[in-house]
Amino acid sequence: MRKIIAFNRVSADGYFSAPDGSLEWTVQDEALDKAAAGRLDTTDAILFGRRTYDMFESFWPHAVDDSPTAPAPHGEPRRSREMRELGAWINAATKIVYSRTRSAVTWRGSRLIGEFDPREIAALKRQPGKDIMIFGSGSIASQLTAHGLIDEYQFVVSPVVLGSGHPLLSGIASRVPLALADATPYPSGHVMLRYTHAG
Amino acid sequence: MRKIIAFNRVSADGYFSAPDGSLEWTVQDEALDKAAAGRLDTTDAILFGRRTYDMFESFWPHAVDDSPTAPAPHGEPRRSREMRELGAWINAATKIVYSRTRSAVTWRGSRLIGEFDPREIAALKRQPGKDIMIFGSGSIASQLTAHGLIDEYQFVVSPVVLGSGHPLLSGIASRVPLALADATPYPSGHVMLRYTHAG
Repeated sequence: MRKIIAFNRVSADGYFSAPDGSLEWTVQDEALDKAAAGRLDTTDAILFGRRTYDMFESFWPHAVDDSPTAPAPHGEPRRSREMRELGAWINAATKIVYSRTRSAVTWRGSRLIGEFDPREIAALKRQPGKDIMIFGSGSIASQLTAHGLIDEYQFVVSPVVLGSGHPLLSGIASRVPLALADATPYPSGHVMLRYTHAG
Repeated sequence: MRKIIAFNRVSADGYFSAPDGSLEWTVQDEALDKAAAGRLDTTDAILFGRRTYDMFESFWPHAVDDSPTAPAPHGEPRRSREMRELGAWINAATKIVYSRTRSAVTWRGSRLIGEFDPREIAALKRQPGKDIMIFGSGSIASQLTAHGLIDEYQFVVSPVVLGSGHPLLSGIASRVPLALADATPYPSGHVMLRYTHAG
């Protein structure tokens, strides 16, 4: 069975995005990127809410040359090997996009879906394939959580107080007990908390 | 100089209290209580917003016999040694209460203050005495944070998704970079994240 893994950055005071919805308060961390790159082999699909998809689509198709070994073109910022591997993985992944407003998606591997249906996700998890990631996408992540469809939560806590902003999950009527899988501090001050379902 | 230490429980999805403001989703953890009891010697005062004070006042004066060695009275729940030590410390501590609505406070050691004034807090920190705790009290904790007056944040992340609720800090205009002091996982799945000011 394919797992769904939610990966998110969160501030020390529990905010997942700034008041304007942006993630520009997050700080890059090469050690974190290395750890993330090491997990790419076991995942091949991404679930997206519309806003997060827009954000990714405006960056990743142009951010990196798809070939992990390509040299950085003149005049472009040099990307780390991890960034290029991540970019190649994102561009190649199956991207399932929930949107009621967009009529088409052109980024390679994207598939547009109008309405969230938990049965469709349960069927997707039973299909052959690797594990499935979801980044941000609060509305979809909340619905998945409410239906018990997220198998693993990876929260990277940043050493910063944002002081205002937005939560990731909202409108969920009942609590979901989790089991801590591991807590990994990085030299940068980031802490990766990894949870699976309890019991 | 006395330090101000903010101690809070937070859910894995970043909520500090349930939609009704309660903390009844938190789970007691004897190992955490032991660690907290070990730090009581270095603190002797508590800052309170009105709502948190009300909550503490309805529980602690009656929860424990003040003597740490007293046996549990008949018919009352048996409290752990750590709970009794914590209760004795809270009842004895100087309690500084911010409220514009209460006209009097009768719980031993309490002092009522109408308006938050950062200069008064800065003066308090220069006075002789032990360190000062603040639990919850989001409005006061936010104003202290905005004025750079909190020296240490202790966040205990619970292994639970609340799915809705309230943040602790809000309305703070600029970010506060922190330095991770330590990240301590407990067998229960709690993780204590301890931060000091960066730089």
